[in-house]
Amino acid sequence: MSGSTFGKNITVSTWGESHGKALGCVIDGFPAGMELDEGDIQKLLDRRKPGTSSATTSRKEDDLVEILSGVFDGRTTGTPISLMVTNTNQKSSDYSEIAKYYRPGHADYGFDEKYGFRDYRGGGRSSGRETIGRVAAGALCEKLLNKMGITVEAYTRSIGDVEIDESCLKDLSPRLTTPTAMPDVIADKRAMELINATREKNDSLGGVIECRIKGVPAGIGEPVFDKLDALLARSVMSIGAVKAVEIGDGISVATYYGSQNNDAFEAVGNRISKKTNHSGGILGGISDGSEIILRAYVKPTPSIASTQETINNEGENITINIKGRHDPVVVPRAVVVVESMCAITILDLMISNMSSKADSIIQFYK
Amino acid sequence: MSGSTFGKNITVSTWGESHGKALGCVIDGFPAGMELDEGDIQKLLDRRKPGTSSATTSRKEDDLVEILSGVFDGRTTGTPISLMVTNTNQKSSDYSEIAKYYRPGHADYGFDEKYGFRDYRGGGRSSGRETIGRVAAGALCEKLLNKMGITVEAYTRSIGDVEIDESCLKDLSPRLTTPTAMPDVIADKRAMELINATREKNDSLGGVIECRIKGVPAGIGEPVFDKLDALLARSVMSIGAVKAVEIGDGISVATYYGSQNNDAFEAVGNRISKKTNHSGGILGGISDGSEIILRAYVKPTPSIASTQETINNEGENITINIKGRHDPVVVPRAVVVVESMCAITILDLMISNMSSKADSIIQFYK
Amino acid sequence: MSGSTFGKNITVSTWGESHGKALGCVIDGFPAGMELDEGDIQKLLDRRKPGTSSATTSRKEDDLVEILSGVFDGRTTGTPISLMVTNTNQKSSDYSEIAKYYRPGHADYGFDEKYGFRDYRGGGRSSGRETIGRVAAGALCEKLLNKMGITVEAYTRSIGDVEIDESCLKDLSPRLTTPTAMPDVIADKRAMELINATREKNDSLGGVIECRIKGVPAGIGEPVFDKLDALLARSVMSIGAVKAVEIGDGISVATYYGSQNNDAFEAVGNRISKKTNHSGGILGGISDGSEIILRAYVKPTPSIASTQETINNEGENITINIKGRHDPVVVPRAVVVVESMCAITILDLMISNMSSKADSIIQFYK
Amino acid sequence: MSGSTFGKNITVSTWGESHGKALGCVIDGFPAGMELDEGDIQKLLDRRKPGTSSATTSRKEDDLVEILSGVFDGRTTGTPISLMVTNTNQKSSDYSEIAKYYRPGHADYGFDEKYGFRDYRGGGRSSGRETIGRVAAGALCEKLLNKMGITVEAYTRSIGDVEIDESCLKDLSPRLTTPTAMPDVIADKRAMELINATREKNDSLGGVIECRIKGVPAGIGEPVFDKLDALLARSVMSIGAVKAVEIGDGISVATYYGSQNNDAFEAVGNRISKKTNHSGGILGGISDGSEIILRAYVKPTPSIASTQETINNEGENITINIKGRHDPVVVPRAVVVVESMCAITILDLMISNMSSKADSIIQFYK
Repeated sequence: MSGSTFGKNITVSTWGESHGKALGCVIDGFPAGMELDEGDIQKLLDRRKPGTSSATTSRKEDDLVEILSGVFDGRTTGTPISLMVTNTNQKSSDYSEIAKYYRPGHADYGFDEKYGFRDYRGGGRSSGRETIGRVAAGALCEKLLNKMGITVEAYTRSIGDVEIDESCLKDLSPRLTTPTAMPDVIADKRAMELINATREKNDSLGGVIECRIKGVPAGIGEPVFDKLDALLARSVMSIGAVKAVEIGDGISVATYYGSQNNDAFEAVGNRISKKTNHSGGILGGISDGSEIILRAYVKPTPSIASTQETINNEGENITINIKGRHDPVVVPRAVVVVESMCAITILDLMISNMSSKADSIIQFYK
Repeated sequence: MSGSTFGKNITVSTWGESHGKALGCVIDGFPAGMELDEGDIQKLLDRRKPGTSSATTSRKEDDLVEILSGVFDGRTTGTPISLMVTNTNQKSSDYSEIAKYYRPGHADYGFDEKYGFRDYRGGGRSSGRETIGRVAAGALCEKLLNKMGITVEAYTRSIGDVEIDESCLKDLSPRLTTPTAMPDVIADKRAMELINATREKNDSLGGVIECRIKGVPAGIGEPVFDKLDALLARSVMSIGAVKAVEIGDGISVATYYGSQNNDAFEAVGNRISKKTNHSGGILGGISDGSEIILRAYVKPTPSIASTQETINNEGENITINIKGRHDPVVVPRAVVVVESMCAITILDLMISNMSSKADSIIQFYK
Repeated sequence: MSGSTFGKNITVSTWGESHGKALGCVIDGFPAGMELDEGDIQKLLDRRKPGTSSATTSRKEDDLVEILSGVFDGRTTGTPISLMVTNTNQKSSDYSEIAKYYRPGHADYGFDEKYGFRDYRGGGRSSGRETIGRVAAGALCEKLLNKMGITVEAYTRSIGDVEIDESCLKDLSPRLTTPTAMPDVIADKRAMELINATREKNDSLGGVIECRIKGVPAGIGEPVFDKLDALLARSVMSIGAVKAVEIGDGISVATYYGSQNNDAFEAVGNRISKKTNHSGGILGGISDGSEIILRAYVKPTPSIASTQETINNEGENITINIKGRHDPVVVPRAVVVVESMCAITILDLMISNMSSKADSIIQFYK
Repeated sequence: MSGSTFGKNITVSTWGESHGKALGCVIDGFPAGMELDEGDIQKLLDRRKPGTSSATTSRKEDDLVEILSGVFDGRTTGTPISLMVTNTNQKSSDYSEIAKYYRPGHADYGFDEKYGFRDYRGGGRSSGRETIGRVAAGALCEKLLNKMGITVEAYTRSIGDVEIDESCLKDLSPRLTTPTAMPDVIADKRAMELINATREKNDSLGGVIECRIKGVPAGIGEPVFDKLDALLARSVMSIGAVKAVEIGDGISVATYYGSQNNDAFEAVGNRISKKTNHSGGILGGISDGSEIILRAYVKPTPSIASTQETINNEGENITINIKGRHDPVVVPRAVVVVESMCAITILDLMISNMSSKADSIIQFYK
């Protein structure tokens, strides 16, 4: 059992259910001395907040974070940082009906088999609201990474069949203001039209989230099971609706020739770099100094108002129409979750890497 | 640091370099009382053995496994099982040249940056030979899973642009005898032709490995970070050349509508099943009782004889032609590695699941 | 870093500082289906509450626990249980002075060296208040153990030179009502006199806590590093003021002969038992079916009002008199902490033991 | 299950049974670049080798170590170091009888209950020979600590009622040549007389091992569960025959007054030190810069030739006389095991401490 803790030297434990009193996380091992206040965290939490456009659920969740421990005089103390968001707008009545059947595409059945019963209110622990804890923790890690010149930027690459234009990758900043979290304002508009049309058909959409991490030095990642890509894959695949993860050119490499896929190293002045980046910044599980690129493929929201077949508690075949306020597509809100999981993973592996050389340890304690 | 250990209740630690004295693994926490001899392990190891066809390197590696501990009177004792394969056919001279430069597509540069130097012989720790330990451990786990009626079957789905015909999925057994590990003997022939043609062009190929796991009960996988798909993704992405992992319909779901992607539950007699299996047997990170399906996308072998650009130790731009005996495609030999990692992951999570209900624990100790 | 999480299949992460907003813990992996309400936890928390007699500080801390997650319809859900106690009676002003110097016997200096600064209010994270999270978690584990017929009973064995009479071990229940947590009401009175006399001398006392665990079956504990006694030693030594831990006859065995120390096995009807119990219920790190007995040696409270020498922030030698409301002896309040840590350790190892035999796993999934 | 792995950033996994083919360990996460050859390890292994005097068993075990991986060109590579000692002088016939009954003071019964059967030859996994892996790993860690000016020195403090004279602590070097591992040659002679006399009476002895660690900077140890003393207690208590562990003044502090026990800080020039060291170098679980002192209390060898009562496989009460070549006291050979476990624990925590401050991480990657 267990499974709600992620990381090794920095550990993040999330807790909380969709309709419980509160949700949160405990971050242990976060280094001391970094300035931190609620605003640093709220900034990222607000990016997963619903109710800001028709791309998301109409539920209002303010999701204001509170720092309960681990910060003193405006700085992290090195001891566990406990963060909490109180649940305020949860209407359990909305969900009384779903207690009686298994929603297709949801974990209801698995939870019942595993635990014997389940907190059915809003999906309980399997709700997307669990990611509040991840994003809160990610905010801290990203802040420290930024101080080291490392940026972690996730954005929506596509929704349904609407994809961004690659030219927009030069400036990712629009992703912070578009309702779809796309960096391409034109694609964003088309995607919004698709979303609205799909919702009217009582249906939902999926999409692709891309994350680019710049500034990570070569040498990060631990052979063989804690490879950088292996831990990124785990961290991103652990987000509810993600069904595939790829690094660099990803699935495409299966049809490449070796001569196409290999990235040539080149010396540019004193720096070692690569002429291309098919590898997505990771070779043999270790960062190669190039930009790290990954993509998460997100399934369409399973809660739809269309008629669906399923079974009820008594094992009878029934048809249902799921009511309630659901996101027609979770991609825009999941973007910051992907970004957060990547930030946690990278920072933790950078700490692990500090003891890779005997000389580094000797030097540290001189 | 560290990173060579995988698993929680069953832990697998691999050790060894391509050209060291030996390679192996230690499996701790494997339950007591299962009959085990070298033959059980050799059977799987032979599936990753090279030199059996022109699809693989011409190096001869017998890779005979020796059980050093943890087995007594033909049964596992519950204590660590130490398995070793002695290196016999390693010619370090083949590799003296690659000490001087960074091979494109390899971890050479990352290792140097991380550790300050590297065992360059045959890739050292980043060699595919490291997977010997994984397969040896996987053999044990798969044997125990089989006793529970669970089968784990990986096979080659495609090499380059040659893909198997889905009709061949009815009988996967040919995968054990075709040189490509495809279950489709016709596609196998075409793939072999492609491999041979590619080798003659001093180039290499990638491909797709698919794994199907039948018989896993619903309820396996731990929310939220130790989700079944998250741990499968990590375990499979930790295999050297894998650049993408997908579960069920994987990347396709990003363009589905919810109404297409959701699998309807249905009661068939006393059993709960699903009308479709887009989910690949996993919902919300927990097994749903259907067949578990995943795919690993494998890049083309980076070691190619064609001329490539790179840099040498002195940071000078040079061109190289990599000599030595290399697999023109690693997919056929990696199939059993994927199968092994899946077997280890599933068994470990099934053990974790044993304590999900308070009643189970009380019952166990009655 | 990190270090605030304990356990393997059941993990307990504590968080919070003495004078922060709140303290608490997250218990992950606790099995589903056990009835639980705040009262179950409060019962144990009240045993560490101060202000109930002159044996403890006069600070008033109600320490009311709140269940924030992981419980639904009065039962544990299998998901993380987040427990919180809000700090209500913390007067930071009391501690403003100690910010300026290192208190002898405290971790102040270590924290400053480690983290660069410290939350000095009431000892911050190194305060005994951190144990609130441990006791809250221990309450859950003890409840489940009780359902299996296992009892965990800690009590004060001695304070200063006042020791209980062994005849009182027949009935341990008085430990729940005596101010010293001794099961011997006569020794309790003498100990209280000693405590009061010592406080008047501006001094403090230590003592010995003993814990007896009945009903644990033989076979619990994992060779070789997760031995039952090794993990108990860690769990109990991790309590702030403990300076020694012994199992069974403990330090005495160093001067025994083998013929004295060995416990003879005997068959009593169908049961296997031992004629003596010098081993304290643990042989080779595994429970032997006898009562498990351990003792923790607790140092005198370091915060005393007597004049002491130390240094200040500027590195000057100074003398101090520590003010504030301190326990003249922490033993009575630490008793339930020892009991809690033992309960967590035992339950976690009992879960680990469920997969010791291959047949058990096969049987479980039939 | 599992439990054969110790450590976090440096992990040590031991494997092997007394009478299996071999024993060994895998050390993962050991930093790269330290010179290492078999001689570095053999030096420590020879200190636990039996057959060198009448204080130990007459069994001849050469215990020659072989490095199988992780070292290249005479230096550690940062990848797993696999170390193996082949069993050469194991006579399984000596042990055929003990298969039929449970030896008092041994783990036989626990193993049978746990695993359903046991490798009874020489105690199998519960044999003292398992510590070969610990000492081999300890040798590496101690070598690196020495490079940082840290010494770890364990020695025999007492055997039975023969204790060393404290004046001998000034020069611990005789411990490396006396048969008892005492630093006091006079006490050593008396102890040898006691050992010989005890063996003639078919009995055995216990004793006390003390370990002193000099040069550890203040700040090592992680609050709250990974306290330096908590992890030392676990690591030392995990050695087979240890029944108690104490830090600094240990059990004595229970009867001290606070004014006696507190160590005054003082500034000596630029350095902060303590006037006394009752704390044994650890305050609040964190090193305080003073010498770290711990003691392990070791029980008398349970295998004695005297007549003992026990039960056989059929559950019948019987009497036995254990034959075979056993140590009359394990203390002298266990000294280097205590030293090794302390070295592993300290080095691992020093690595964890490297990320305690945000500034350290930023500085490291500049």
